Amino acid sequence: MSKIVLKSVMFQGKIRDILISGKRFAKVERPLNAKDLDKAEIIDCSGLAILPPFYNGHCHAAMTLLRGFADDMPLQEWLQNHIWPFEGKMTPKDIEIGSRLAVLEMIKSGTVFFADMYWHREQTMKVVKEMGIRATIGVTFAQGLMSDEAIENNFKFIRDHRFESERVALAVMPHSPYMVGEALFKRCAKVAREEEMILHTHLAETKKEVADCKKQYGCTPVELMDRYTVLGGNFVAAHCVHMNDEDMTLMADSSSAAILNPCSNLKLSSGIPKIPKMLESGMLVGIGTDGASSNNNLDMHEEMKLTSLLTKVSSGAEKLPAEEVLKMATSNVAIAYGVPAGVIAEGFLADALLVDLKNERLNPCHNLVSNWVYSADSSSIHSVICNGKFVMKNRHVDGEEDIVREAETCAKSIASRC
Amino acid sequence: MSKIVLKSVMFQGKIRDILISGKRFAKVERPLNAKDLDKAEIIDCSGLAILPPFYNGHCHAAMTLLRGFADDMPLQEWLQNHIWPFEGKMTPKDIEIGSRLAVLEMIKSGTVFFADMYWHREQTMKVVKEMGIRATIGVTFAQGLMSDEAIENNFKFIRDHRFESERVALAVMPHSPYMVGEALFKRCAKVAREEEMILHTHLAETKKEVADCKKQYGCTPVELMDRYTVLGGNFVAAHCVHMNDEDMTLMADSSSAAILNPCSNLKLSSGIPKIPKMLESGMLVGIGTDGASSNNNLDMHEEMKLTSLLTKVSSGAEKLPAEEVLKMATSNVAIAYGVPAGVIAEGFLADALLVDLKNERLNPCHNLVSNWVYSADSSSIHSVICNGKFVMKNRHVDGEEDIVREAETCAKSIASRC
Repeated sequence: MSKIVLKSVMFQGKIRDILISGKRFAKVERPLNAKDLDKAEIIDCSGLAILPPFYNGHCHAAMTLLRGFADDMPLQEWLQNHIWPFEGKMTPKDIEIGSRLAVLEMIKSGTVFFADMYWHREQTMKVVKEMGIRATIGVTFAQGLMSDEAIENNFKFIRDHRFESERVALAVMPHSPYMVGEALFKRCAKVAREEEMILHTHLAETKKEVADCKKQYGCTPVELMDRYTVLGGNFVAAHCVHMNDEDMTLMADSSSAAILNPCSNLKLSSGIPKIPKMLESGMLVGIGTDGASSNNNLDMHEEMKLTSLLTKVSSGAEKLPAEEVLKMATSNVAIAYGVPAGVIAEGFLADALLVDLKNERLNPCHNLVSNWVYSADSSSIHSVICNGKFVMKNRHVDGEEDIVREAETCAKSIASRC
Repeated sequence: MSKIVLKSVMFQGKIRDILISGKRFAKVERPLNAKDLDKAEIIDCSGLAILPPFYNGHCHAAMTLLRGFADDMPLQEWLQNHIWPFEGKMTPKDIEIGSRLAVLEMIKSGTVFFADMYWHREQTMKVVKEMGIRATIGVTFAQGLMSDEAIENNFKFIRDHRFESERVALAVMPHSPYMVGEALFKRCAKVAREEEMILHTHLAETKKEVADCKKQYGCTPVELMDRYTVLGGNFVAAHCVHMNDEDMTLMADSSSAAILNPCSNLKLSSGIPKIPKMLESGMLVGIGTDGASSNNNLDMHEEMKLTSLLTKVSSGAEKLPAEEVLKMATSNVAIAYGVPAGVIAEGFLADALLVDLKNERLNPCHNLVSNWVYSADSSSIHSVICNGKFVMKNRHVDGEEDIVREAETCAKSIASRC
């Protein structure tokens, strides 16, 4: 088993040597001995601090190809006249190219995991395996957009590919209660339970969605999920902007998780989630970026700071301390998706960031976590480790120039045909 | 006069050669000839785009020393038990060191100008002159904190140093209507008008300030400014979170300018400014970062995106297009402070950013301004030009490691004595 020693790294205010054995942290707070060092690759981490990396709880990775393609317009015009026509031209190869740009961007901004809901999941899975990070990739269901045969193929794909890779998990992802009817939603939930998979959906994103749901079903989207009996420890809902107190209680009591996407929700004018109330309810709350067409980046750092600011302005400057919001962008998402990672501790999967303590935005260093949450940006991220391996070293990711160039060519070609 | 040619740089979607002659843009959209090139320093800018840099409309630069010193607590506890005791220990030398860290951070995140309200302005002026950027530095007035002699010395300083440097302007900065009484505020305004200087103050930052003002004076803070007859083309107010419609009309009709500090206002739970209404009123609106103790960085890019998001969520996804919010962070601030800069055009002061078009967050490039506003962070900034000179080249600022180290030592020393 490969061994790496991160020598003289700053960990929670103290200089430590950290042993990574294979894909896990083996020793974090105990001194290393000769046996630990034997045949280990020793990496000098003087001047660097180790921090947990980001886990992106909701994404549509390949939509990086649509970054900046359409902005600053009402939702329906944006979707019908720009986003959907562009997406209609995207081939499996385009999805691969867009996903690769997304994974590059995520690595460079400190993210080692994302949950993805999109089409042609095989392409995104391939990219994640190649580039060394983790993902929970959705098998996406959307009625109206899919034939019955395509739906059956989805279920077959789930059975065939369930345990394919240690870094890539599959999840069942019915798009939303308004795109997937009762029977199919319940079947998705049943399969997810049987296969012990995550069930992920968009939920309560807009006021219109809630109003339409009440009109059609006489209940809120969360109550509808409860009626479908899909809530539970494997249920992860994205957005959750418009939940009332009862919705939050249902989510919390069932151990369901919510993923906030504040940047997207603000940019598309969907609303501001009631973050303080969600946290008070006891619900597991994580953070995600949504896709690059409505953000327009995949920077979890921005989402984390925005989550903190939106909480403080509505509830008080003392609410949601830096340590708490950092958990929402790291371990809370890992917990929601069942990944034993997101903390730097023995036995956990060895995912980590090494940040440059000389970066101007991390100085002075009265409090590293505060500086990281409220001040830093990606320029302080020196290296990124996932599953015990470096995926970025000294700000360089293998092949990055080619990835960017290929995405640019691909996106322009699609745009020219729209 | 020195000449620089930015060769093959992307400007508004086209590859151009741009001539900087001395401190101004000499040719931007016209082809260069042999005479233009004669004795010019030719800089290959292939793969780079030129954009206007940021102008930070409200800052307390030296407060970088307090970055992360105290967070996540109610305003009064934060101020009285942490911020004020720390500030009470700061010497002129500390102000210099903190200002230097601030200017470094601003340059690295693309800012070439800031308006500063703090103490020991000589130190901050010295740093700005040395490091090559611009500033409007306040002569700060705050009754209760200053002796009558100190107030008189302030007025003497204004007369003596009015025209000291081409990159550094002085401004008259009464702290706020609650820290400066009627007679002194009017005297400040009179001196500012006579000397043709900017008058800058904190205004309508918190609900409490507005309520107290109504109780004491029977009017809003903006109405009080009108009553003092200080509104006008040289009046720039920071924060402006709690303004009513009449306040906005008074500001707009008098050609007064407002500087938003959304990050600080959210973090300190002061509130969300009514940005759409402010813009509709016709008021000149710019953006600033406030100090690092309440932000906790000086990144105008973050403020710009946050301003956009807060506008869209309250008023619609189509509001405040990328081009408009970029103006609020660039030329609007330059106009407010009377600096003929903030646009890349002939005759304007040669301030500019060169951004790396290969940066993953600027790709694909359907729309560079959209990518810059909604997606980029400081990692895409390759070089920074101010007044016709490079202040950062290829992400390097002269002396940056020493600046960071000195600030860390200085801040820790002060903290240990608090």
